[in-house]
Amino acid sequence: MPDSTPPPSFSGTGRTRVRRHPERAHYDRDTVFAILDAALMCHVGYVIDGRPYVTPTLFWRDGERLYWHGSSASRMLRTQASGIPVCVTVSHVDGLILARCAFRHSLNYRAVMAFGTAAIVDDPAQKEAGFNAFIERLYPGRTGIMRAISPQELKATSLMSMVIEEASAKIRSGGPLDLEQDYEAGVGPA
Amino acid sequence: MPDSTPPPSFSGTGRTRVRRHPERAHYDRDTVFAILDAALMCHVGYVIDGRPYVTPTLFWRDGERLYWHGSSASRMLRTQASGIPVCVTVSHVDGLILARCAFRHSLNYRAVMAFGTAAIVDDPAQKEAGFNAFIERLYPGRTGIMRAISPQELKATSLMSMVIEEASAKIRSGGPLDLEQDYEAGVGPA
Repeated sequence: MPDSTPPPSFSGTGRTRVRRHPERAHYDRDTVFAILDAALMCHVGYVIDGRPYVTPTLFWRDGERLYWHGSSASRMLRTQASGIPVCVTVSHVDGLILARCAFRHSLNYRAVMAFGTAAIVDDPAQKEAGFNAFIERLYPGRTGIMRAISPQELKATSLMSMVIEEASAKIRSGGPLDLEQDYEAGVGPA
Repeated sequence: MPDSTPPPSFSGTGRTRVRRHPERAHYDRDTVFAILDAALMCHVGYVIDGRPYVTPTLFWRDGERLYWHGSSASRMLRTQASGIPVCVTVSHVDGLILARCAFRHSLNYRAVMAFGTAAIVDDPAQKEAGFNAFIERLYPGRTGIMRAISPQELKATSLMSMVIEEASAKIRSGGPLDLEQDYEAGVGPA
């Protein structure tokens, strides 16, 4: 891996500082990585001609680095190949929180926003290792019983990679935070 | 509703034309709306200073219009309040597809990318109606048994809205598409 030993936390500064409900924010790598690793799908945001695009895709992580893949002909990957800023967001819905008034309804969730510059991985050996790591992430042991990826297949697929430059996690857990004045309402959480 | 009678399909042109696997593309409103309505969470992409941001949030739909909400102090909503282009993406993972070689592994999914201009809904009556529609979407009948939203609560919450200007859906279903040459591999899909 090209990355040197990482500091224990991503910095909660600039665009990753969680402003709303800062008590829900986490910047330590363990928390950020656990939320990323619990997800199959991420949503990759990127900009073309000043406009936002968000593409859902499978992804995997190796240390500080996120990977995703797709057809070499894909618009998303062709755009990102040149090295563009992306925001990779992962979210998990953990529970709907019912409360005694509309305003106090909430959601338990875990989410990560990770920022970096996406670039294409060109080296065939690195690509093959990346795709095998992806299969192994989902299906441990499976690359050992399948034939190797063919050179044509390698060529038809692009591998994208991004070092996480900044990231923040946001987590809500626990029950509703009802107002005392609503305690007697006959609409208690289920 | 301010929208006139909608045509039956979003147009699959420009940024919403699905280029990869066009056989998986759908532009008709029924398909797009069904995928949106089956989701709790969307991922809203927007641009600040030329950089992409993707925020996960709950959302709901009323006709051609998508709504989401949040604290009036939220950076995302303050940015979008001025009326900025957004991409709202929704995705569902329906199944992992194992195949006889790495390349043919796939994912069954349903996804929608919807483009429009997000703006804040200022009118208190419209806001209240919107929040109540949100509660009703998740918990039918619940607004009838709760106290009304207070003026303070209305003020503390922003309601965002976007008419879907363009949208496309993409769906993969079915089993693996193995190559005949791999049929005899001893790694048959589970």
